[in-house]
Amino acid sequence: MELDLQLYSVRTDLALEAREMAQGPTKSPIPGVNEEVEESDGIKITRLGVATPAGSQAIGRAIGNYVTLEVPGLRGGDTGLQQKVAEAFAREFEGFMTRIGIGKDSSALIVGLGNWNVTPDSLGPLVVENALVTRQFYELVPDQVSPGYRKVSAIAPGVLGLTGIESSEVVQGIVDRTKPDVIIAIDALASRSLERINTTIQIADIGIHPGSGIGNKRRGLTREVLGVPCIAIGVPTVCYASTIVNNVLEMMKSHFGQGAPTKEIMGMLDDISEQDRLTLVKEVLEPLGHDLIVTPKEIDEFIEDIANIVASGLNAALHEAVDPTNVGAYTH
Amino acid sequence: MELDLQLYSVRTDLALEAREMAQGPTKSPIPGVNEEVEESDGIKITRLGVATPAGSQAIGRAIGNYVTLEVPGLRGGDTGLQQKVAEAFAREFEGFMTRIGIGKDSSALIVGLGNWNVTPDSLGPLVVENALVTRQFYELVPDQVSPGYRKVSAIAPGVLGLTGIESSEVVQGIVDRTKPDVIIAIDALASRSLERINTTIQIADIGIHPGSGIGNKRRGLTREVLGVPCIAIGVPTVCYASTIVNNVLEMMKSHFGQGAPTKEIMGMLDDISEQDRLTLVKEVLEPLGHDLIVTPKEIDEFIEDIANIVASGLNAALHEAVDPTNVGAYTH
Amino acid sequence: MELDLQLYSVRTDLALEAREMAQGPTKSPIPGVNEEVEESDGIKITRLGVATPAGSQAIGRAIGNYVTLEVPGLRGGDTGLQQKVAEAFAREFEGFMTRIGIGKDSSALIVGLGNWNVTPDSLGPLVVENALVTRQFYELVPDQVSPGYRKVSAIAPGVLGLTGIESSEVVQGIVDRTKPDVIIAIDALASRSLERINTTIQIADIGIHPGSGIGNKRRGLTREVLGVPCIAIGVPTVCYASTIVNNVLEMMKSHFGQGAPTKEIMGMLDDISEQDRLTLVKEVLEPLGHDLIVTPKEIDEFIEDIANIVASGLNAALHEAVDPTNVGAYTH
Amino acid sequence: MELDLQLYSVRTDLALEAREMAQGPTKSPIPGVNEEVEESDGIKITRLGVATPAGSQAIGRAIGNYVTLEVPGLRGGDTGLQQKVAEAFAREFEGFMTRIGIGKDSSALIVGLGNWNVTPDSLGPLVVENALVTRQFYELVPDQVSPGYRKVSAIAPGVLGLTGIESSEVVQGIVDRTKPDVIIAIDALASRSLERINTTIQIADIGIHPGSGIGNKRRGLTREVLGVPCIAIGVPTVCYASTIVNNVLEMMKSHFGQGAPTKEIMGMLDDISEQDRLTLVKEVLEPLGHDLIVTPKEIDEFIEDIANIVASGLNAALHEAVDPTNVGAYTH
Repeated sequence: MELDLQLYSVRTDLALEAREMAQGPTKSPIPGVNEEVEESDGIKITRLGVATPAGSQAIGRAIGNYVTLEVPGLRGGDTGLQQKVAEAFAREFEGFMTRIGIGKDSSALIVGLGNWNVTPDSLGPLVVENALVTRQFYELVPDQVSPGYRKVSAIAPGVLGLTGIESSEVVQGIVDRTKPDVIIAIDALASRSLERINTTIQIADIGIHPGSGIGNKRRGLTREVLGVPCIAIGVPTVCYASTIVNNVLEMMKSHFGQGAPTKEIMGMLDDISEQDRLTLVKEVLEPLGHDLIVTPKEIDEFIEDIANIVASGLNAALHEAVDPTNVGAYTH
Repeated sequence: MELDLQLYSVRTDLALEAREMAQGPTKSPIPGVNEEVEESDGIKITRLGVATPAGSQAIGRAIGNYVTLEVPGLRGGDTGLQQKVAEAFAREFEGFMTRIGIGKDSSALIVGLGNWNVTPDSLGPLVVENALVTRQFYELVPDQVSPGYRKVSAIAPGVLGLTGIESSEVVQGIVDRTKPDVIIAIDALASRSLERINTTIQIADIGIHPGSGIGNKRRGLTREVLGVPCIAIGVPTVCYASTIVNNVLEMMKSHFGQGAPTKEIMGMLDDISEQDRLTLVKEVLEPLGHDLIVTPKEIDEFIEDIANIVASGLNAALHEAVDPTNVGAYTH
Repeated sequence: MELDLQLYSVRTDLALEAREMAQGPTKSPIPGVNEEVEESDGIKITRLGVATPAGSQAIGRAIGNYVTLEVPGLRGGDTGLQQKVAEAFAREFEGFMTRIGIGKDSSALIVGLGNWNVTPDSLGPLVVENALVTRQFYELVPDQVSPGYRKVSAIAPGVLGLTGIESSEVVQGIVDRTKPDVIIAIDALASRSLERINTTIQIADIGIHPGSGIGNKRRGLTREVLGVPCIAIGVPTVCYASTIVNNVLEMMKSHFGQGAPTKEIMGMLDDISEQDRLTLVKEVLEPLGHDLIVTPKEIDEFIEDIANIVASGLNAALHEAVDPTNVGAYTH
Repeated sequence: MELDLQLYSVRTDLALEAREMAQGPTKSPIPGVNEEVEESDGIKITRLGVATPAGSQAIGRAIGNYVTLEVPGLRGGDTGLQQKVAEAFAREFEGFMTRIGIGKDSSALIVGLGNWNVTPDSLGPLVVENALVTRQFYELVPDQVSPGYRKVSAIAPGVLGLTGIESSEVVQGIVDRTKPDVIIAIDALASRSLERINTTIQIADIGIHPGSGIGNKRRGLTREVLGVPCIAIGVPTVCYASTIVNNVLEMMKSHFGQGAPTKEIMGMLDDISEQDRLTLVKEVLEPLGHDLIVTPKEIDEFIEDIANIVASGLNAALHEAVDPTNVGAYTH
């Protein structure tokens, strides 16, 4: 819990960023946290494993597996690149499921968290709209389902302010009745760095924890709560004004080099730890009510593109009959 | 079941129309079915009680209470009339709840059935969007809730084709976990007469039965299934091409009088029963795949207006603190 | 003018239907009207030429060229067929432009008529949203435009009720300033037969005439008014309740054969001309305000699909560099 | 031109902010720029007059009249306050028109600039949707128009990237044909301070200048270009990441006082001028492509609320028969 508050204070939902912050500028390895990086076609894939309580403590993230796809070029709106990212995401997601023991015939419930009326929070509902759902055929005409598919259902449970019901309660009710083998929860996240917004996808097997995400999801969607594994897919779509400032001051330090001039230019802002600097910035902004959560101006297009990538990738990863090269046909 | 098929064949979801068809042109009373009609301000309210198995058999509707508001003027888009209808609906709904024994403190779950991507089927989800939900305050800050409200939650469970899950299963899961005292289910209906489309609201305490409505809701939302009473609110938003033709032929008969000329003009179409005539029309249309379900061209505006009326009326009926004259402030 | 009223009374915007009605059941050729029919892959293409004043008089349509694509299967939502129709439409449109003398380098202004808030009337604005516009590049960086494109601009002028300005005035203002070589106007139409709704595309070189279309476009978009040729692309998306009834009665006649039984079954409705029958039906419906204009329940999806077909086809026909097989990439 | 670039470099479209920046911390009056401030009900109204070339030069704004409404509380979503702001805006706008000589019977063309597909840029089109247009009645049934109205038309010309036509060209074409007496152009703006986003409305009689606004509007909408006066209404809905950083550093200076500690804490960032600091921040961000334009996460709701305020206010200011207390009835 204490950990949680601390994490919240740096305001990132990405394990990658939590690790970077824990490492600091030295970038020395953290015991109990292993990492594998792969890069091609402008897509950087980082597979992070938090293996021990010490590792978990060090980066403030639960023990588990985390895969991150970073694609700075995504912001350019290049449809060819989007296709490649969907394929890479499909491969990674399939591999991820295998590694954590989800079989090819396991049934899945896709949960699209977030609020469809708030563009940067609408990722989950948009992915649900484009998911290839098949459970109805298994229920109604089980002997007519072609091979190459698995049983998939999908729901956007809404947010507490609109339904009066925690999304976790809606999901638990559905899990109780429909008994899926795995939950795949999609959510919009907050990032601490501007460049990761709308360019990064995280897959994690630790579910959705209270206080994560940008909406109201107090009770978690975790294996402990639901009784089945819960894979979380998250994309940062917003950040705090304070983290932008902090992020830019950090960039200034790199920009001016690590030597004396930085101190001269930035005064104490150069010396203090990132955490202290952020506290300082928040101290200035919050009393004025200006620590807004912001999102890029082009969010409408970004969110649609990334939702298509995630939905296409999921459809290909979940159904063998859906080919990564023709996934488009299954989304709007 | 047999009854059901027969009902489906006349394609109405309105008890009022079922009764009219059972009565035929003579309009003689039906034993076991009592009726009370009230009319003012262009709003005609019919309270129908199906009291006995014989009555139920005669009109092909379950034993229960049915209230219908008919407002031909609604199609004119007059905001003053809309306000009056919202108030009348609030009064009727409140009275209806009292009559069937739902107390002022009973908690309610509003269920918006239908598909938000299909305009004439989006009534339920639109009402949910505009419902005043309060359950979260009772859960999180129970001692801070002002008097004059009751515990209300609301969900749009989606349709089978989009979620892979029957909406009744979603609702049952939520009912199991949140234990509301009453379900209020809103659904778009099919009508057999053009003039009732978007001008009629039906309240009934028999829940939603399989095969009713225009979407995919095979399992019912009824007291038997859910364990709590279920009030259904329905508005006809579509009709079949075949029922339009049938309806117009019926109007022709009235138009030309009941005498010989009708026979001359309409041949056998005049003689045969409404049911036989409909069968004939369908026989012509269906092989060609032309028995389309149609909706008025102005459906976008109609559905928004009627959803506002129902949501405003519900908000006023469910919460004493919401005044019928200021309900607008609680809807978008 | 008189002609116009008569045409309006049968309520079709399709030359094909006007010709069918003029021919009657005998289907004998009409002097001054020539026709060429081609059918493959479930797509029926009719090229109609109204060559003489007598022909024009006979079918109540202006002298000019009319091409109609009829694709009954379109209602099935088959994406493969949609792709084929887009390609066929592109070919026909390109041929049409060549036949009427529009060169490969002629600049075009696409005009999307209709009201984006009324789903069945939103075809024009939707096509404009998906049109590949290039004029800005020719204006700003003329030497950087790749070969294989032409100068295309696009506008949705709105409807009189929303703007206070006739769409023809908006278009004329833009034509005066931007001097396109040809106008391509897209509009939703009314049909007299149920089966043509959302399954038919008409191309005509006679522009948009007063009283055509389902919206408010009193002044025309014609060569006479604008000073440049105006090609109209229309898709029927609605029909009147009265034409449905009339249409079904017609189908009944065919269904029961041409002999005695029809007379017996349908009385005078069998004998009288289609026009008289329609007058009769309207006489019954209009005083009650029930001669609604209706559209199929699935209009949201239909209109999106057909707008994509038209936009993809136009993009391929207007720009050589856009290949009919990859047109999809240029639309949303 | 040089001025313009400089202005662009500080990235504000608000005259108020330009004046603040020109004044610097001393807040001494600027010759040739007069100001009147009024505050009540949480609404601060500043009437700024730029009277002389020297004044214009000093603040980098054209000679003219500028009225700004600042309402920090607007972000709270309080509908009572929104109503008050609409009334205050209506009063100010009416007064503004009188001061610059626009009579009560002058006809007006409302121009909604911006892109309806980009939420923070959709203010103009949204206001147009809710404007009470009447011109069609003056054209079609001039003798039936009630007193208390004036001739108003409204158009959303789209953006260059979607239409291929400069919005100024579209507007000029319409002005040429419909001859309005005054243009009222609505546009989303960029602000240099976080707290003004979605809480500020500016009215100015200088039209829309090239390079202003957040979209593509290279040619201006000015009296010189159009031949009629052009009043611009602007609301800041976005800001640059770099201006957020700069803005926060400025706030830090105030926060820590003007003395020695600031220097210690902020190093050179404290000393240098705002302009130099901004240049520094941009130097860091731009090469990385991270000087994003951002908008608050809640932009969907904000933009709808503020569009309603502006439309309601305009409707009341333009039509005497529309009462500031019942303006709501004329907007969606």
